Amino acid sequence: MKEMEEKILKEGKVFPGNILKVGNFLNHRLDTDFLMEVGKEIARLFEGEKIDKIVTIETSGVAVAFAAAAHLHVPVVYAKKHRSSNLSPDVYTAVVYSFTHNRDYTVYISKEFLSEGERILIVDDFLAMGNALNGLMDIIAQANATTVGIATAIEKGFQGGGDKLRAKGIRVESMAIIDSMTDETIVFRANDH
Amino acid sequence: MKEMEEKILKEGKVFPGNILKVGNFLNHRLDTDFLMEVGKEIARLFEGEKIDKIVTIETSGVAVAFAAAAHLHVPVVYAKKHRSSNLSPDVYTAVVYSFTHNRDYTVYISKEFLSEGERILIVDDFLAMGNALNGLMDIIAQANATTVGIATAIEKGFQGGGDKLRAKGIRVESMAIIDSMTDETIVFRANDH
Repeated sequence: MKEMEEKILKEGKVFPGNILKVGNFLNHRLDTDFLMEVGKEIARLFEGEKIDKIVTIETSGVAVAFAAAAHLHVPVVYAKKHRSSNLSPDVYTAVVYSFTHNRDYTVYISKEFLSEGERILIVDDFLAMGNALNGLMDIIAQANATTVGIATAIEKGFQGGGDKLRAKGIRVESMAIIDSMTDETIVFRANDH
Repeated sequence: MKEMEEKILKEGKVFPGNILKVGNFLNHRLDTDFLMEVGKEIARLFEGEKIDKIVTIETSGVAVAFAAAAHLHVPVVYAKKHRSSNLSPDVYTAVVYSFTHNRDYTVYISKEFLSEGERILIVDDFLAMGNALNGLMDIIAQANATTVGIATAIEKGFQGGGDKLRAKGIRVESMAIIDSMTDETIVFRANDH
């Protein structure tokens, strides 16, 4: 998605440790109209597929997942990272390693919100090593539901997670794939959409 | 909003300790089309006001805030509850007491995402004691911006936070106001919209 590449070049900031800050439009501050366009593009890419539900992970995945869901007219379920007193005890869980924070954390989805046989599109803001997405796919498999594909706003291609998923036959659509980045240059992978 | 009252009666569950679970449509699972209608109603109620930005608080405020923003065509900034390594050190903060979790927590907004003179609509999923909203208003005041009003999906009127805010002259619009609730009956306050 050309608009995503332009947005990253214009508003993204690269920091040491392979960190790309896009707090100006994708998390913390949400560029609503832009994210609705991103959601429309995700819906267009998956329009031939039967999709019952979108699954994402709090917090930064919620806005882009919701924007895609608004165009696909399906509900969103977001995995929680914190087990609050409001969460049902009957949950699916997965342990995810966070590269950014260098620790494991557990994600939860209430069993009542995933059903056997459902066809699920996973949507998230970032794809780097793919750990969070693997955790979500694990939870979807626990529910005997099917992951139809994965859509992400920004893929850090140089971290390899996206290509590992593709090598397993999973359809992964990223609105922009970064093949390399420094504080001076960001190189995108050629992308036909 | 009649549809919100109907939704609460149909899908909400009352638990001891004045807890209303609406995880089926407002948090955890998001009923996208319904929340887009809620966002449309919020936009309609505030259509006469100049609004530059919506402010909410992660995670459960994000979807309804984003839905309202999609109709108002303004950005959303969400306050963070966790100080991640990606967050700028230059932040506004407020300490909020959580009735649900019986503890204080700190919320953060990066200074770069609030500007002096901006006119802000606060949107959140719940209004009970009003502690989170008071924290957000405090942060907005620190930035020398103005709170135009507050819109919430569900107000627990019997906890008094909404009426205290109204008594201070703040415009508070809740899609449904619950005056009392037990596991058998939920009584809504008469509401002209």
